[in-house]
Amino acid sequence: MRYSQLFGKTKTTTPHDENSVNAKLLTQGGFVDKMAAGIYNYLPLGQRVLKKILQIVREEMDAVGGQEIAMPALHPIELWQQTGRDKTADAILYRTKGAGDKDFVFAPSHEEAVTPLAKKFIQSYKDLPLSVYQIQTKFRNEPRAKSGVLRGREFGMKDMYSFHTDDADLDQYYEKVKQAYLNVYDRCGVKAYVVEASGGIFSDKISHEFSVVTPAGEDTILVCKKCNIAQNLEIAEGKIHNPHEKGEKELPMKEVKVDRGPTIEESAKAHSVPQSKILKSVVYKLDNGGLIGVCIRGDLQVNEHKLAKYLGQEVRPAGQEDLEEAGLVAGFISPVGLPNVEGGVKHAAEIEPKGEKGAHKDSYTKVPLPFVADHSIREVKNFATGANKKNVDLANVNLGRDFTIGDFTDLVSVDTSFACNKCGGKLEEVTAIEAGNIFKLGTKYSEAFDVNFTDEKGERKPVIMGCYGIGTTRLVGTIVEASHDEKGIIWPASVAPYSVHLLSLGDSDDVRTESEKIYRELQKENIEVLFDDRNESAGVKFNDADLIGIPLRVVISERNMKNGNAELKLRAEKDNKLVPLSKVMSEIKKSFK
Amino acid sequence: MRYSQLFGKTKTTTPHDENSVNAKLLTQGGFVDKMAAGIYNYLPLGQRVLKKILQIVREEMDAVGGQEIAMPALHPIELWQQTGRDKTADAILYRTKGAGDKDFVFAPSHEEAVTPLAKKFIQSYKDLPLSVYQIQTKFRNEPRAKSGVLRGREFGMKDMYSFHTDDADLDQYYEKVKQAYLNVYDRCGVKAYVVEASGGIFSDKISHEFSVVTPAGEDTILVCKKCNIAQNLEIAEGKIHNPHEKGEKELPMKEVKVDRGPTIEESAKAHSVPQSKILKSVVYKLDNGGLIGVCIRGDLQVNEHKLAKYLGQEVRPAGQEDLEEAGLVAGFISPVGLPNVEGGVKHAAEIEPKGEKGAHKDSYTKVPLPFVADHSIREVKNFATGANKKNVDLANVNLGRDFTIGDFTDLVSVDTSFACNKCGGKLEEVTAIEAGNIFKLGTKYSEAFDVNFTDEKGERKPVIMGCYGIGTTRLVGTIVEASHDEKGIIWPASVAPYSVHLLSLGDSDDVRTESEKIYRELQKENIEVLFDDRNESAGVKFNDADLIGIPLRVVISERNMKNGNAELKLRAEKDNKLVPLSKVMSEIKKSFK
Repeated sequence: MRYSQLFGKTKTTTPHDENSVNAKLLTQGGFVDKMAAGIYNYLPLGQRVLKKILQIVREEMDAVGGQEIAMPALHPIELWQQTGRDKTADAILYRTKGAGDKDFVFAPSHEEAVTPLAKKFIQSYKDLPLSVYQIQTKFRNEPRAKSGVLRGREFGMKDMYSFHTDDADLDQYYEKVKQAYLNVYDRCGVKAYVVEASGGIFSDKISHEFSVVTPAGEDTILVCKKCNIAQNLEIAEGKIHNPHEKGEKELPMKEVKVDRGPTIEESAKAHSVPQSKILKSVVYKLDNGGLIGVCIRGDLQVNEHKLAKYLGQEVRPAGQEDLEEAGLVAGFISPVGLPNVEGGVKHAAEIEPKGEKGAHKDSYTKVPLPFVADHSIREVKNFATGANKKNVDLANVNLGRDFTIGDFTDLVSVDTSFACNKCGGKLEEVTAIEAGNIFKLGTKYSEAFDVNFTDEKGERKPVIMGCYGIGTTRLVGTIVEASHDEKGIIWPASVAPYSVHLLSLGDSDDVRTESEKIYRELQKENIEVLFDDRNESAGVKFNDADLIGIPLRVVISERNMKNGNAELKLRAEKDNKLVPLSKVMSEIKKSFK
Repeated sequence: MRYSQLFGKTKTTTPHDENSVNAKLLTQGGFVDKMAAGIYNYLPLGQRVLKKILQIVREEMDAVGGQEIAMPALHPIELWQQTGRDKTADAILYRTKGAGDKDFVFAPSHEEAVTPLAKKFIQSYKDLPLSVYQIQTKFRNEPRAKSGVLRGREFGMKDMYSFHTDDADLDQYYEKVKQAYLNVYDRCGVKAYVVEASGGIFSDKISHEFSVVTPAGEDTILVCKKCNIAQNLEIAEGKIHNPHEKGEKELPMKEVKVDRGPTIEESAKAHSVPQSKILKSVVYKLDNGGLIGVCIRGDLQVNEHKLAKYLGQEVRPAGQEDLEEAGLVAGFISPVGLPNVEGGVKHAAEIEPKGEKGAHKDSYTKVPLPFVADHSIREVKNFATGANKKNVDLANVNLGRDFTIGDFTDLVSVDTSFACNKCGGKLEEVTAIEAGNIFKLGTKYSEAFDVNFTDEKGERKPVIMGCYGIGTTRLVGTIVEASHDEKGIIWPASVAPYSVHLLSLGDSDDVRTESEKIYRELQKENIEVLFDDRNESAGVKFNDADLIGIPLRVVISERNMKNGNAELKLRAEKDNKLVPLSKVMSEIKKSFK
């Protein structure tokens, strides 16, 4: 393609109404053009990138047995009424009226289309498993379109839906698709991590997000680069380092008068021990008004999302007033010898904790303020802690001997000081963009549409479903966010609009002739080439090449031709190299190996 | 692909709510599934056909320099207000409201998107010509969705738009695209004719339709199979056969008393001449109330669409009352010696006829009833005609000597008795489906959006536009309409979902093993194969194969295997042939040459 003829040239200024890196670079580079907020035209360069992504996505979905179909965007409202999403998703639905005054929605998702469609062809277990996908335009009435092509009102999506006889079959397929998704990102040249979605505190839904690491991502995740695991901060687990010797002998508990402030730091100082030797007790107020105490090792923090999920209700740290009302002494609270606290017991006893196995619900009636504890307190001997009296502490407090806790669970906020739970590797905090997600839908939609199958014994059962989405236009933006520098985009070779950017510098006949020759040869070899044949300065052409970000730049200039050379430079690397004109073609081919 | 695993199996019954052949066969064959009237799911088989069509379309558009882009479907209403199509196309627009109470339409066409987009990148003549296309989903609120996938409310379309400095450049490109379109249909295995669109009677728009010949097409066209030209009946031209000797001598005109009825047949009988010797005069009433006479050779018919287009207003045959009021004698009207007819003159004189060059507008004031004539009366001498008196005729009437006509134009209804105007070949009447159209838009949209360019002299001029559309999903249906028999679809090889339909008949191990072997070999050779591996009867499998319509059927059965054979049959042909199993692969490959 001759750049002089390409529709959608670079712009010298960045668009004033775009804040995100992807929108700035894609617009300035001539890849996209904004029609309205969240609604973009894809120009030839952008369309080429998109088509390469789609090809990769198709191949990977085909490889896991996905069958490509195409479902409509225009859905009769009745389909959405059947799942209730006409109400629950109301805010993002574009609605319209068709002939005969009929109500339609423009679909932001296709469970309401694919489920009744599958119903027509699923009779028995012989028709399962089944997996169908489409690459299609979605419409979502986002209250605020933002982040360029990352969150649009009209966007491209690959959505796949699978249908199974039982959970085990879904589980197996789910893992296959997870790997296919990782292949997609890998082939698109970006690093993606699978992250278990935190979900709402009431949600039991199993789903995973695929997070692509980018310098200015919207999400923060914890990754272990050793075993390639990433975690959502809200639910991250990690290996706690126990800094103390194992087998430490339990010393006799004693009461100690102290004159200290309420913090863990002050407590550790008062006892001349590390913070990890302090038994920390934090009191939370529940949604139902009751109080609950959380024990955790002094140097660690309570993760409130985990606590809320465990309790099945929202929590917030108890205020001074709450503590006083319950007769608790701020800074000196502990589960040891706790006085009767009416408020706490009364309300907290109503809680149905979702603990791990062996949780003793009874324990709530045994201790006045119900306590749960993080596992971190199990390994440490001879804690120092408050005595539930002002300026009185207890030293050498030991779990089991001096106090008991009914329920242990994972309540710790994991950060980069933790090791990877799986491999012990170092955890790192990185920012990322969500670039896909997969869900185990179970029977939610098959029950709504009454999609059943006859199993081998002749029994009718609801079909088990999974769904799997990648925003394809969003992925264009994600790649740009992940792969650019201050000069422009750096396209991974697999999704670059062209492989070679050929620049002719200067207007001499020699340069023209040589450039045209190389242009023809590249086309003959089926190497995709963008040929900047314009009558522009070297500066303009170099800047445009950096902005557009094609992997290999080949420069034909008078200066280099004098020495019989051409200049080759990889966009991702700093240095260029001179190559004899006779070897240009072979060197170009070498670059793609 | 194993048919046992394919999503979207055949149905044994035709859908009761579909009338068109395409919808019946596509639904029954498992290619599409109706979600709502005019809104279809494309199942894997249908999607495969569609993708093959899209590939052909892309290649042909690329070949004429079209650059692929993707424009949004969701348009701010302001764009449509700017061209006034928010009102003129109101009936077919799906409208919606987005965040911030903004009005949008879902686009049925993209002039309102592409024109402002092109404006951003067109500054000078150096940016022209430019041609961009997209393959995209269109939404059209059809009052009555009908004809299966031929006229949907949501449908796929390839729309291309071109931009030029002048009409000559557009004309040249228009012809290139016309040929590219013919290539598309040809490659899709259907015969298409270019037909000049008749347009409305007020329209000067130049546009062409591409008509694919089908047994039950919606349109009737006249084609010359010799030079491949087709014409819309409403505006068809043809070579008139003059049955009379040239150079016939003009005889003296004479009045003849007759006793005859008003028809041409009766007139010819009364004078003992062929109908072609009768000067026929037909009187029409205009929209403005005036009358006009049309002279045509007695054996030919007046084409009212041509007449209306010529006059720039609607016409209808004058009624008995109209004639009487004007003093005209039905059955005896002629332009010879016509008495003064006030009504006709008064009104018809206001007409601005759009005649050919040399039209004498003055003539309307010279004859009492204004007359126009078809060219067919020019070659004939010694006409018989009425004398504008009851039961009085004139014999040996000659143009020029006995009467004059101010304006000659083409007003004849052409039918299969005419010869091709271009090559003299035989004209045939066939039914067809419109499968694409192209328009010279001129400056209509560039003026609406103020899209100008600076020409070589530095002058600003509006850009000249063309647009070119193929309904891609409609083409799926068109191919089915054009290529099927009573058993099912007959896919042209280029767009068939698979090339080979492999059937294993019977459940013996030998048949299984041999079928699996051929299946593997076909896959290895990249020959697309659908393998009916189900445990179904031969009858079911044969019927399904005929219904689905894959070009080559390969049958492995116990009976044939006994003799070491497989059976090959082309869907489009009647006979099958037995081929030694050892030669199956080479015979299959031969079929595709």
